[in-house]
Amino acid sequence: MSTLVVGSIAIDSVETPWGKDPEAYGGSALFFSVAASLFSPVNMVGVVGEDFAFEKIDFLKDRSVGLEGVSVEPGKTFRWGGRYHENMNKRDTLFTDLNVFENFAPVIPDHYRNNEFIFLANIQPDLQEDVLEQVHQPKLTVLDTMNLWIDIKPEELKRVVSKVNVVIMNDDEIKQYSGLENIFDGARQIMAEGPDVMVVKKGEHGAVLITEDDLFLAPAYPIAKVVDPTGAGDSFAGGFVGYLASQPEINTSALRESVIYGSTVASFTVEDFSFNRLKEISREDVEARVNHMRNMTQF
Amino acid sequence: MSTLVVGSIAIDSVETPWGKDPEAYGGSALFFSVAASLFSPVNMVGVVGEDFAFEKIDFLKDRSVGLEGVSVEPGKTFRWGGRYHENMNKRDTLFTDLNVFENFAPVIPDHYRNNEFIFLANIQPDLQEDVLEQVHQPKLTVLDTMNLWIDIKPEELKRVVSKVNVVIMNDDEIKQYSGLENIFDGARQIMAEGPDVMVVKKGEHGAVLITEDDLFLAPAYPIAKVVDPTGAGDSFAGGFVGYLASQPEINTSALRESVIYGSTVASFTVEDFSFNRLKEISREDVEARVNHMRNMTQF
Repeated sequence: MSTLVVGSIAIDSVETPWGKDPEAYGGSALFFSVAASLFSPVNMVGVVGEDFAFEKIDFLKDRSVGLEGVSVEPGKTFRWGGRYHENMNKRDTLFTDLNVFENFAPVIPDHYRNNEFIFLANIQPDLQEDVLEQVHQPKLTVLDTMNLWIDIKPEELKRVVSKVNVVIMNDDEIKQYSGLENIFDGARQIMAEGPDVMVVKKGEHGAVLITEDDLFLAPAYPIAKVVDPTGAGDSFAGGFVGYLASQPEINTSALRESVIYGSTVASFTVEDFSFNRLKEISREDVEARVNHMRNMTQF
Repeated sequence: MSTLVVGSIAIDSVETPWGKDPEAYGGSALFFSVAASLFSPVNMVGVVGEDFAFEKIDFLKDRSVGLEGVSVEPGKTFRWGGRYHENMNKRDTLFTDLNVFENFAPVIPDHYRNNEFIFLANIQPDLQEDVLEQVHQPKLTVLDTMNLWIDIKPEELKRVVSKVNVVIMNDDEIKQYSGLENIFDGARQIMAEGPDVMVVKKGEHGAVLITEDDLFLAPAYPIAKVVDPTGAGDSFAGGFVGYLASQPEINTSALRESVIYGSTVASFTVEDFSFNRLKEISREDVEARVNHMRNMTQF
């Protein structure tokens, strides 16, 4: 089944202890699409400026990613600059130039409105709600967000959270959103607002899946050298939703596997800048790590 | 098989957001023994002052814990006071009164010198080495330590690390000891100094087992309410060593299970002050959580 993703498309300038990339193509929609398309078709909606070099994402056509929803507007593409610290868990934002993204108002092309899976990548909650109003009875809606929206748009975020099936947040975001220190309590409080499934991202410590009657603890795939963590969360979501959309049914076992696939795909993302690593891998590379994950967790 | 543990015995004064206990019996040897004795016999060597109320640990006799190695010296028992912050990962030390522990020089009773398993709990590395010289060809030696000794006794610690089979450290200690940011690299560097097995404790994020040809990722058992984290690490070690000593053979599968038992036992420890919770549980309670852990990690 196909997934519609609506989110940011960016040209990042990234510095890490291992090097820098002043033109790292990224953004939540792009990282998600590169990841999800390893498993099932994706249609992307977003906006870029006239400086955006489409040849850099040409490979996405071979992966069944529809780009008709990407509009080109006068001006520059959204640009973000960041520098990671030695331990990679902290980063400084050097600049944020919204550019054409500032007036982004997602319009879903007609032939995308029947997509069965909807991923609302990290954009402001009003726009996420707009998207939900444009689509027709999806099978599953999944929402991502960030600390900024919890901070400045709490009411709008609450409203859209109450309308989706799955919420993906990292541990800090759950604590901030719920006001609770325990992530399990926080997740259950969020689920009481509507969602049936919470996926808690814990970075290098893995992920947790919580449903009404299931709790699944997934480790992160151990990485020898994290070169650039940018996009890890978005590609986790891509692996999670893309794999789930490839399954015949949404049930406990498919959800658990999807978390493992999300975690595994993210482990490739961080091995290089931008989606350089994610671009070169195949489904077989992912399967090899998933098998390794299974081996590393059995007792 | 029996385990000899040498370490501290303390009366702690602990404050957490959930309450306080001004007379919390603890210390590394005591937490270890309460935990390990759920699985196999333990013999404890340590020192207490005249203020120590032995009736508080009377229950250990029913659990096959030998106390003949606990000497009573004139003066007071080692006392530590600490206050945990809201998130439980940080704590302030309010006071440390070494008292009789200041001149602790472990003497291993003759009938303990043939114990097959030796646990060198967190005491200064010179004393840990002393213990190794007093025992006769143990089957397995396991060492724990802390940031203080890495800081002020690095050479002494290096020497004793090179002489043991298993080292247990938390993620921060591995980084500090090895000078490496990646815990897998750090662990392998320590193993190059002698040990065959590294166990990395990651608190609420679980634990990792590393041997020359195995890598095992264990989650932490999810706890609804952490009341007091004191003793979690020592009881993890107790569950790990105690369970391993109950197994017919030390192999990959037994080591992996031992990590799960360590992690599970620690999950009980933190549910109450001191070893109050650990004291009241049975082997069956542990098995129930281990089964739950198995269920929560399968995919």
